[in-house]
Amino acid sequence: MGDPAGVGPEAAARAWAVRREHGLAPFVAIGDAAAVAAVWDGPVARVGDMDEAARVFYTALPVWHLEDSGPLHPGAPTAAGATCALHALETGIGLTRNQASAALVTGPVSKYALHGIGYTHPGQTEFIAERCGVTAANAVMMLAAPGLRVVPLTVHIPLSEVAERLTSELIVGKARVVARALRRDFGIAEPQLAIAGLNPHAGESGQLGREEAEVIQPAIDQLQSEGIAIDGPLASDSLFAPHVRARYDALLCCYHDQALAPFKALHFHDGVNLTLGLPIIRTSPDHGTAFNIAGRGTVDPGPTVAAIALAAQLATSRERRCATTAA
Amino acid sequence: MGDPAGVGPEAAARAWAVRREHGLAPFVAIGDAAAVAAVWDGPVARVGDMDEAARVFYTALPVWHLEDSGPLHPGAPTAAGATCALHALETGIGLTRNQASAALVTGPVSKYALHGIGYTHPGQTEFIAERCGVTAANAVMMLAAPGLRVVPLTVHIPLSEVAERLTSELIVGKARVVARALRRDFGIAEPQLAIAGLNPHAGESGQLGREEAEVIQPAIDQLQSEGIAIDGPLASDSLFAPHVRARYDALLCCYHDQALAPFKALHFHDGVNLTLGLPIIRTSPDHGTAFNIAGRGTVDPGPTVAAIALAAQLATSRERRCATTAA
Repeated sequence: MGDPAGVGPEAAARAWAVRREHGLAPFVAIGDAAAVAAVWDGPVARVGDMDEAARVFYTALPVWHLEDSGPLHPGAPTAAGATCALHALETGIGLTRNQASAALVTGPVSKYALHGIGYTHPGQTEFIAERCGVTAANAVMMLAAPGLRVVPLTVHIPLSEVAERLTSELIVGKARVVARALRRDFGIAEPQLAIAGLNPHAGESGQLGREEAEVIQPAIDQLQSEGIAIDGPLASDSLFAPHVRARYDALLCCYHDQALAPFKALHFHDGVNLTLGLPIIRTSPDHGTAFNIAGRGTVDPGPTVAAIALAAQLATSRERRCATTAA
Repeated sequence: MGDPAGVGPEAAARAWAVRREHGLAPFVAIGDAAAVAAVWDGPVARVGDMDEAARVFYTALPVWHLEDSGPLHPGAPTAAGATCALHALETGIGLTRNQASAALVTGPVSKYALHGIGYTHPGQTEFIAERCGVTAANAVMMLAAPGLRVVPLTVHIPLSEVAERLTSELIVGKARVVARALRRDFGIAEPQLAIAGLNPHAGESGQLGREEAEVIQPAIDQLQSEGIAIDGPLASDSLFAPHVRARYDALLCCYHDQALAPFKALHFHDGVNLTLGLPIIRTSPDHGTAFNIAGRGTVDPGPTVAAIALAAQLATSRERRCATTAA
């Protein structure tokens, strides 16, 4: 559910309310049951294990109640709320790691509130990666929507540091994770990748920058030598043209906004944030806590619905693949 | 017509062929008449003045023939072709400067071929600005499509130089040109601008970069003190969300791909490139010479049609405004 004072509890409840239209697989909301009751008057059933959750799912929102997070005011985060969000995250990771749950969908948290209780990771992804024994570099962020998947190769760093942080090694490492995840989790036998140039017009043959020739092309050569199909470097304003983006299973971008600005221009309401390279399936609705609208009954469950649906799809694909491999 | 060996001549001819469906105002194609004949078998009328062009426009494509540019092979640029393109540009500027023409639409040229004949400007825009007595800094590039206008504040420079080149002065100067053009040419009485942040999440309160606070915010303060309505700095991945971009008459972006990647993701086929801040109206289809498809009869005239239609709209708006001012 993420932060109990954010939009997470309401989004989970409203996603349950539209479960039939969207054919959602059973899920359980983890956190403070009072956070749901404060913003939603539909049926809720407290559960203590996943089998029970699956049973009650058809008639009530299953809630795995962890703790009372104190007096609840939607929109006003507290230390107790941040603690509850962290416990919910830990519980969700544990249930998914031991395969009681097929996938983990994380709700929005307040980094500020989490840092206030001593949490030192930049976001949830790094925490999940650590609990899964994966280095942060190998936990790769992807934004996915129908017909479009993008991967920012660098993420939360100042623009002025992008050129120096983008190395051939970084590109090769993340592209390998992406290619593997497309095969294993998305069931794409021969994924076709593209990578954007760093500079305008992909450097225009070196006139507008050298990184395409010196950093990106060597990475492409290495990946192709490993049998990974990847085109580029392509000018990012051509890469996102409808007939170009349609050719690729994932677009690798050099920095945050090169990936996210076009992605959200096209898919603001149905984009899902997911983490590739983990031993578990992890998705997340692509928005924050939205404290400014929490508790007003206006939360759009669309992104949470999309995150749950994609998590189920990926879990099914991975499970089928594992069964095939074992057979 | 731009380069005679590019797609310009065919795009002009095909735009003429669909003039009625799109209600296009009369236009004349300037350059080598043989370049049109080589790729199109529709009616052509050579003309020597603009009145004649307007008369014949209803039954034939008016062509202002300047010179024979030699043996013509679509797709293969030559020095003679580049010379013809340059003469066409000069003629077009002259006709528009002396108001024989209401607006100038420039076709795609080969910078490489132009540089081969001693042309030293980076593109056509800088040449036009110089001929109009406007500094390059005050000739501002805009991409326009139905419902979306974007302005890259820095253009053809390496990404690693963007942070140092983006100054408050540059932002203020270009934003003034944009606000004035929206009033004068687009007829928007109180234009509402937005400016993107440079860094991810617009710097996240300084944690991901200081340029928002140190460079962009002072520019916003200055512009607002001059009565120019401008919001920002806004995270560029939120700025292009449908409900956000709809609020603004123009989105000012810090660099080329921040503006063009989302723009072309949304408007690859109907975007128009235009230059604000000139004494003349100048638009251009938002594509290059496309030598690889020239002469195959497959050129989409859509971008040229959009560029002609927008040029006529802007000219009408500016003329109406001038008449009002004079009255």
